[in-house]
Amino acid sequence: MNIVEIIRKKRNKEELTKEEVLYLVKSFTKGKIPDYQFSAFLMAVYFSGMNTIETAALTEAMLYSGKVIDLSLIPGFKIDKHSTGGVGDKTSLIIAPIVAAAGALVPMISGRGLGHTGGTLDKLESVPGFRTSLSLSDYKLVVKKCGAVLIGQTKDIAPADKLIYALRDVTATVESIPLITSSIMSKKLAEGIDGLVLDVKTGSGAFMRELKDAEELASSLLNTTKSFNKKVTAFITDMNQPLGNNIGNWLEILECIDILKGEKENDLLELSLNLAGSMLNLAGKADSLEEGIELSKQMISSGKAYSKFMDIIKYQGGDLKYINNPSLYPSPRFTEDLIAEEDGYLCSTDCYQFGMASLELGAGRMTKEDDIDPKAGIIFNKKIGDKVKKGEVIGHLFSDVRNKIDKAKGRLTGAMEFSNSKCKKPELIKKII
Amino acid sequence: MNIVEIIRKKRNKEELTKEEVLYLVKSFTKGKIPDYQFSAFLMAVYFSGMNTIETAALTEAMLYSGKVIDLSLIPGFKIDKHSTGGVGDKTSLIIAPIVAAAGALVPMISGRGLGHTGGTLDKLESVPGFRTSLSLSDYKLVVKKCGAVLIGQTKDIAPADKLIYALRDVTATVESIPLITSSIMSKKLAEGIDGLVLDVKTGSGAFMRELKDAEELASSLLNTTKSFNKKVTAFITDMNQPLGNNIGNWLEILECIDILKGEKENDLLELSLNLAGSMLNLAGKADSLEEGIELSKQMISSGKAYSKFMDIIKYQGGDLKYINNPSLYPSPRFTEDLIAEEDGYLCSTDCYQFGMASLELGAGRMTKEDDIDPKAGIIFNKKIGDKVKKGEVIGHLFSDVRNKIDKAKGRLTGAMEFSNSKCKKPELIKKII
Repeated sequence: MNIVEIIRKKRNKEELTKEEVLYLVKSFTKGKIPDYQFSAFLMAVYFSGMNTIETAALTEAMLYSGKVIDLSLIPGFKIDKHSTGGVGDKTSLIIAPIVAAAGALVPMISGRGLGHTGGTLDKLESVPGFRTSLSLSDYKLVVKKCGAVLIGQTKDIAPADKLIYALRDVTATVESIPLITSSIMSKKLAEGIDGLVLDVKTGSGAFMRELKDAEELASSLLNTTKSFNKKVTAFITDMNQPLGNNIGNWLEILECIDILKGEKENDLLELSLNLAGSMLNLAGKADSLEEGIELSKQMISSGKAYSKFMDIIKYQGGDLKYINNPSLYPSPRFTEDLIAEEDGYLCSTDCYQFGMASLELGAGRMTKEDDIDPKAGIIFNKKIGDKVKKGEVIGHLFSDVRNKIDKAKGRLTGAMEFSNSKCKKPELIKKII
Repeated sequence: MNIVEIIRKKRNKEELTKEEVLYLVKSFTKGKIPDYQFSAFLMAVYFSGMNTIETAALTEAMLYSGKVIDLSLIPGFKIDKHSTGGVGDKTSLIIAPIVAAAGALVPMISGRGLGHTGGTLDKLESVPGFRTSLSLSDYKLVVKKCGAVLIGQTKDIAPADKLIYALRDVTATVESIPLITSSIMSKKLAEGIDGLVLDVKTGSGAFMRELKDAEELASSLLNTTKSFNKKVTAFITDMNQPLGNNIGNWLEILECIDILKGEKENDLLELSLNLAGSMLNLAGKADSLEEGIELSKQMISSGKAYSKFMDIIKYQGGDLKYINNPSLYPSPRFTEDLIAEEDGYLCSTDCYQFGMASLELGAGRMTKEDDIDPKAGIIFNKKIGDKVKKGEVIGHLFSDVRNKIDKAKGRLTGAMEFSNSKCKKPELIKKII
């Protein structure tokens, strides 16, 4: 096959054959195609797009560039959830114990935070001792014994994705639906799952700010998952304000503990119940989403979910004493309250700025090499539509560095809009496909 | 400046500033930007296009990547012609002596043939002894003494174009109007010219098959030339059949001799008179195109153009004995006639196939490294609209290799369409802008 002809074909908006896509990705991964040809191809895909068959072929090529984990010898339905990332999104930590407690298996391979979005691995690693880099045999062992496992990507999984992503990052070809789809799916499908629930975020704190783009991505992810004969449901959910109240790694663990103990009710709980309910439905543990939600609620009220959460932490080396007694956890050097400056209603938040403020406090990283401070972050008590009173404490900022708090506070102040009249609460779940 | 942001801006169809374009090309030429980023940029330009200002900036950056020849110390108006390439297009060899004979200066830097199209340098080099690689000081000297010079591109001229073209060639980004424009113009503007006549070909033997594309390219070339304050006229001309009757390097020299001696009249003469007339008009030697055409005719009828042709060959080392007595030139080993198989009218030719047949006979090259045979080629006596009789000799094929003649003959047979009813002759000059 002629590489230039394949690039030209895609450039001319023609459909590539499965063989052409496989050949291209394999050759690139083996170093047989130079970067400059592959980057031209990526830009052609950015403009010309890819249909479902091409996207599935791209995913397949990337998937089989590495190890595909086989969990078929472990009995039970294996199901995962993937979120496109947001601010304060810690549903994985709530869902995994709920679903595992209800009898389905949850093998999760997660990522780290970058830019304004947080990452499940960083949150887990804020628990002293917690190990996210298990060997694949330990990964299987923990799934089998505990019912859920949460690890980071290993270098065996979809190495083509790492190569391609690095190239996309420096050639302005990140924002392409088929390229995003294949990147996500090649890693998810390597986990050994039977089903997947997708949570595609939309709004000011999401990668896909516009609903239309989120719908397009959701549909692409859904179709690709179906191409691999996996059960799948996609949610499109709101990310116009932080999910839940806590942003920052250990702060988010604390919020999960409250939710799993049944001691807190908010949008985070609502979304978690929906996602877990849908997973249980796909896994055949509930006959409908509604029944799945009911079952999830029971897992919380019975204490089974919280107990499973403790199991997960224990199996992966986390020190339970900090979960049992959070006051033992080191405190940030500085804390500052966020005070409402006048009476009114919270009308909107720039959720991206909340994520950036949290990063600024030390909870996130601008580049992959940055260190993070697990204690740093924000607690924000208000939701869009809530009433505030002048002088009321509406949030708290935590950091080890004084001037970071000042900067972050300035950023948050500019990221909230208040109004004298009532404001509509945004719809949390916009669509289920 | 951030390279990824510049790529993203062009990808988003935004207009780049002159500074951004200059920075990008300079950095690439100096090896400070990797190929993979520049190829992604090229593909973004393919899709997003460039306006006149951006195209001029790209041209400027490429032009000043190398030497820009200064001919200002030589008195006289310096004018060149550029053709986008075709089959049997040998107008340069006719125009240069006509225009120089009429008192304007013609400094021409030409290219070689590739694929189905011929190249002026190959044609000239079919004259034994003719040197196309003069030093820049010899180039100036010949312009001054002879009034015309025809050389090949030196490595000092627009080195950025060589680098960029090599990358375009392997990334399917050749067919882009702004990239074609900057490639052509960066080389032409380095010649030291005051004016330029453009001959943009359209039809089955042209790079731009569709009239619409040819018009777009002509307008882009025209605007860019104007941006550099040069006088310019653009012709859009027909390339649905070979220009003139001879295809192949020495065969084309022979046809030029006939035309310059006033011994032949055909479409080649007509186009040459128009282009030379336009050049003389721009150079101020004639007040209109019509007057320029008249002056050109006089140069032929007076013998001045042919005499100048001999001068050019002499000044550049060509052996005049072959011009004076073509029978001394080596003969191809094999000659074969092309015979009409039935009565009718020639309705259309696939001009690209004529070019490919000539290449096949040995007159052209598939890759830059191929050798060519100056004796090889085709004489085709018919023009679209002409009547043919069964058994009539309509052409001749020349090659040193027997089976190449058979292959080329098959190709030509398939590249002609005949009809029982009369056919319309295509309009030679479609537009003058």
